[in-house]
Amino acid sequence: MAQQERAIRTRLAVVEAAARVFAEHGYVAAKVTDILRIAGVTKGALYFHFDSKEALARGVLEEQTSYRPPVQEVKLQEVVDLAMSVAHRLRHDPILRAGARLSADPVGRDHYGSAWSQWVGLLTEILQEAGRRGETLSHVVPREIAELVVGAFNGVQMYAQLETDLADVEYRVSLLLKNLLPSIASPSVLLRLDLAVDRGARLVAEQREERVPASV
Amino acid sequence: MAQQERAIRTRLAVVEAAARVFAEHGYVAAKVTDILRIAGVTKGALYFHFDSKEALARGVLEEQTSYRPPVQEVKLQEVVDLAMSVAHRLRHDPILRAGARLSADPVGRDHYGSAWSQWVGLLTEILQEAGRRGETLSHVVPREIAELVVGAFNGVQMYAQLETDLADVEYRVSLLLKNLLPSIASPSVLLRLDLAVDRGARLVAEQREERVPASV
Repeated sequence: MAQQERAIRTRLAVVEAAARVFAEHGYVAAKVTDILRIAGVTKGALYFHFDSKEALARGVLEEQTSYRPPVQEVKLQEVVDLAMSVAHRLRHDPILRAGARLSADPVGRDHYGSAWSQWVGLLTEILQEAGRRGETLSHVVPREIAELVVGAFNGVQMYAQLETDLADVEYRVSLLLKNLLPSIASPSVLLRLDLAVDRGARLVAEQREERVPASV
Repeated sequence: MAQQERAIRTRLAVVEAAARVFAEHGYVAAKVTDILRIAGVTKGALYFHFDSKEALARGVLEEQTSYRPPVQEVKLQEVVDLAMSVAHRLRHDPILRAGARLSADPVGRDHYGSAWSQWVGLLTEILQEAGRRGETLSHVVPREIAELVVGAFNGVQMYAQLETDLADVEYRVSLLLKNLLPSIASPSVLLRLDLAVDRGARLVAEQREERVPASV
């Protein structure tokens, strides 16, 4: 294994271990010694990539928001896809759970920031393009709706986390979208949207297949 | 002042002081000594009413959910009124802020419970009655929508808390309702709803006036 590849793997192992610890204990109570143990790396290796707990939190947040849903013909489908794939990944990926918890931490976020602004920025762009294409109703203000979706999504996923340990988070997020989108999308766009509960699972599976090189 | 009246005042002073400390520091970091100092009561007086930090948290949550919006001719207006008056009171009343923070605390709520189930129960009842009166669209499942509204409301208020220190929480909650209600209310009911940003402020002011005895 080349040295660079090894460094990338170490960094990812550290980010994933940090995500597990942040997701379970929150930022303040998280211990770097636990992160070291779970990642199975030395202190030196960890500090080579991240020189503080703050830097670890920033690393988790960056990893979380690096995801982009695939381009769709109907732009509002990308809003749905972003929400549904994040909902799906919340159940299976500690990086998403840690990102949600870190972003909602009133003490920590003053130090390492929040993922919300990235999500709002991305959704605002998609909604602006949807507006240019005539997909949205005339009263829609892209940034306002983007903030509403991020806020409401976060509350719904937190509700699912605390009440059902995320078992039904995809159902709840799909229900949120089904009840919000008639106020956002024009009727002709509305009936072309796929809001199924398993939409996120299908998207994530497709992207995984794309990453596996085809056998020759 | 009669002894009983004094006891009621002491209890309220303790609940309000506990709310301030829980709202600012969260359950785990809250110190009973801070609550004593802010309430200006003795340890004995506090423990007469609340024998533990857990009991204090339960006291704050009970006080929070004791509020009922006034009865309205259109039942769905009561859903709006509950949301808008809680949004207004979040800005002005530490008991509401503490209740929101305590209910979303994954560690603490195992001990003292959460206000969410009370809010969901109350909203479910109102939505069931609205359904019997034909105010809701046919696909509405009262409990499902009640949970969605509580979850989404909580995310939106948390967004406002962290991004604007609650300055615009009423605007954001009003926007949430404006975008959700077309999927819940029948059109003829929709246009009779008052979803104005200052709805909560007006309701709270009216209730305050009712409590002040009229001069003879």
